[in-house]
Amino acid sequence: FVRLEKIRFVQLFPAFTCVVLQGVQKSFREVIDVSSGDSHQAGIKPISFVRQVLAACLYPQMLEEQNLPLDIELRAHSLLAACEGGSTGSYTDSSGMPRVRQSIAEFITRRDAGIPSSAKDIFISAGSQRGLMVLVKLLVSGETGVRTGVLTPVPCPHTLPMLLDEAGVMPVPYQLMEERGWTMELDELQLALSAARNHCEPRAIYVSNPGNPTGHVQDRKSIEEVIQFAAAEKLILLVDEVYQDSVYRQDRQFISYKRVLFEMGKVFSETVELVSFHSLSCATMGECGLRAGFMEVVNMDPEVKHYVNTMLCTDISTPVTGQLALELMGSPLKPGDPFYDTYTKEILLIQATLVQNAERAWWFLNSLPAISCQPAMGGVYLYPRLHLPPGLIEQAKVEADVLYCQRLLQEEGVLVGAGCQQGGTTRKHHLRLCIQVPPNTLEEVLTRFGSFHLRLMDKFPHSNTKISSFQH
Amino acid sequence: FVRLEKIRFVQLFPAFTCVVLQGVQKSFREVIDVSSGDSHQAGIKPISFVRQVLAACLYPQMLEEQNLPLDIELRAHSLLAACEGGSTGSYTDSSGMPRVRQSIAEFITRRDAGIPSSAKDIFISAGSQRGLMVLVKLLVSGETGVRTGVLTPVPCPHTLPMLLDEAGVMPVPYQLMEERGWTMELDELQLALSAARNHCEPRAIYVSNPGNPTGHVQDRKSIEEVIQFAAAEKLILLVDEVYQDSVYRQDRQFISYKRVLFEMGKVFSETVELVSFHSLSCATMGECGLRAGFMEVVNMDPEVKHYVNTMLCTDISTPVTGQLALELMGSPLKPGDPFYDTYTKEILLIQATLVQNAERAWWFLNSLPAISCQPAMGGVYLYPRLHLPPGLIEQAKVEADVLYCQRLLQEEGVLVGAGCQQGGTTRKHHLRLCIQVPPNTLEEVLTRFGSFHLRLMDKFPHSNTKISSFQH
Repeated sequence: FVRLEKIRFVQLFPAFTCVVLQGVQKSFREVIDVSSGDSHQAGIKPISFVRQVLAACLYPQMLEEQNLPLDIELRAHSLLAACEGGSTGSYTDSSGMPRVRQSIAEFITRRDAGIPSSAKDIFISAGSQRGLMVLVKLLVSGETGVRTGVLTPVPCPHTLPMLLDEAGVMPVPYQLMEERGWTMELDELQLALSAARNHCEPRAIYVSNPGNPTGHVQDRKSIEEVIQFAAAEKLILLVDEVYQDSVYRQDRQFISYKRVLFEMGKVFSETVELVSFHSLSCATMGECGLRAGFMEVVNMDPEVKHYVNTMLCTDISTPVTGQLALELMGSPLKPGDPFYDTYTKEILLIQATLVQNAERAWWFLNSLPAISCQPAMGGVYLYPRLHLPPGLIEQAKVEADVLYCQRLLQEEGVLVGAGCQQGGTTRKHHLRLCIQVPPNTLEEVLTRFGSFHLRLMDKFPHSNTKISSFQH
Repeated sequence: FVRLEKIRFVQLFPAFTCVVLQGVQKSFREVIDVSSGDSHQAGIKPISFVRQVLAACLYPQMLEEQNLPLDIELRAHSLLAACEGGSTGSYTDSSGMPRVRQSIAEFITRRDAGIPSSAKDIFISAGSQRGLMVLVKLLVSGETGVRTGVLTPVPCPHTLPMLLDEAGVMPVPYQLMEERGWTMELDELQLALSAARNHCEPRAIYVSNPGNPTGHVQDRKSIEEVIQFAAAEKLILLVDEVYQDSVYRQDRQFISYKRVLFEMGKVFSETVELVSFHSLSCATMGECGLRAGFMEVVNMDPEVKHYVNTMLCTDISTPVTGQLALELMGSPLKPGDPFYDTYTKEILLIQATLVQNAERAWWFLNSLPAISCQPAMGGVYLYPRLHLPPGLIEQAKVEADVLYCQRLLQEEGVLVGAGCQQGGTTRKHHLRLCIQVPPNTLEEVLTRFGSFHLRLMDKFPHSNTKISSFQH
């Protein structure tokens, strides 16, 4: 059927669990998967306002039969009126329902202190990955001999290498500075770019802020530097801002690249091409299963926007339930709405859990020998470094961090991500650990993790190496 | 940003309406779009069993608070138990939830009189188009100089040319025989194949049965011929069977390619590679907005299946609400279930409307001068032929059928599809008209269409040409 030998694939979502656990005597009750962000799977409760509105939109007779809170009833009626034929079962425009795009544009305008956003620059897709795929495919289109490169951070989101590979893009890795809390450094960007220019044509830079998996949140100065760099080198900025509502360090807040760009004056705001991604899955909502995200494009040629739209056409349209949930994310309840208090309580609980977990897991990981973990400022991951004993590294037939993860899964039923999935080549070993889980799940994970790690360290001679945490 | 001149795109979803209607004095109240199948947009009601279960899955508190029919309650509980973390907000396996794949395999086994179907051969995707895209991309992978070709019918579904174009596949058109009711003819397949072998490597044949947009339903003999042809020429069969539950001519029933293949004996059933597509959008359910479909693969190398799965990974997963609706399609209510009668009545109403519309529109179209329409046996389209006056054809700066559609839209606010979107090159002119709409909508469409057509014929001298309808 297929000329198998010709296909290059990076397999990043291995059906790891079943393979590794085959025939293993299990001492644990169940596998806990904290390798990626999937908060509902982990047991975080959905926001009931969102779910109630969606349920009413799917089954509008609820609106007649039941005594729903007034804000839920009104919202459902108004969303249904925005669906073709008044049904969530109809197709929508490929780039999204006009009402949803408008609502998101207003949300961005509020977020960015009034810097205007326009619905025509918002493209809805079935998750932010899908939007990113469309963009990078446009980047490689019309390649002539020299391959298209995209600067990508090391570590990067574990889904990125496979996406770039499928699109045919060459990743140009730039190193983040772990010792400084995973900051972006101009020197590293320059270094990566110079090295790359011999074998590909770098056309864009990908940034994850708040950082996946690092948890770093850039300050204004750092963002300005990156924008200046992109402007000078004529690179398109592809900014993954999907954790924008999950910044929890007290002295750091989320500032969007777009806002900084516009506050740097017209020389930049009228020239630098920027695409920002956001998603229903990664926000406090955690609605991964509904499959919806959006991108805002800035300074993009109208003709290119036309092609973005055309490429989204092959998906026909984004799932309507997901689009409606995006609308609710864009225009949340306001003080005075009858359901507002419940809504706010639920959101605060999710956010408080995240803060508490970040602190707790950071403290615990750093208390273990041969592990050092930078504190996270935002996002849903911790990314601790393993100072693995040489004896273990020599024994490993796969990457040593993969071996570590396999054993952890076999012995304790805890699934974490191996750092070697995060792009680039490095001799350092890391783990990716999602902390957006209920506190008791986190405790169970840490307990199992701790016993495994201490047992392993007992077996191999090791020095209790640590690198300093940036600050906390 | 993009090297525009290098991109080839076939724009098949033009934002036709707004462009054509700009500045036009409208005599009609609203535009009626019957250019493609979107039954809920047109006003067909969703099946309430499906919607009620989905609503309960999205907002499980409904299950505690309300007195729902027992079958709905049980179904919702059981589907929620199949979701990770008991939430529709969690990711699923990229090829679909195991429960949904199993349910579909059982549905296929029942449909095909016991010929076994296995969950591991079922791949769920966000609509059947998405599955098809993955397949054809695998087909072109590893191309070496000679381009990959796929035999495609003329007329074909209007979404197909763009999909093949984006995948980089060369369509190899084979003509369907209008005079015989749009049958597939072996001679035409041979002719197309011989002509193509000079400039590409044909590797698959695409079949739409029941036919989109023709409405033809193949009988067993015709399917056997196509399978023998595919076997002899070593072509993969890509069979679009999305209208399998919408066959309404009394002496014709839907037989799946897989069933015929297996009943032809092991020489065929163990060798011919077959992929069959089905969708939530096109069936009686008409749930286009939920975005879910599936494909069943037969005789596909396990390693290739692994790549299908890997490619679906870039979509992360199919929307959960869509997957749950697929499960409900796969295992519908049974006699004795409390909600069964309501459910059956709703389905029968949708199907009866389709039969009645097909008959009514066919009769009406054939009563007009210079139009001949083959009767449909299934599917949701009629595909009448226009015998346009030479005067009109000469005047047209675009394709004459496009001009006809533009004028119909401008003068009467009715949007139909132009035949030139259906692949191939032909000097004949056709229209695509979706008949899955409420009967009063159909009447309004026919009335407007009739007045437009008669006015146009009055303006141009024409002969009342007709071709004979195959039979009715």
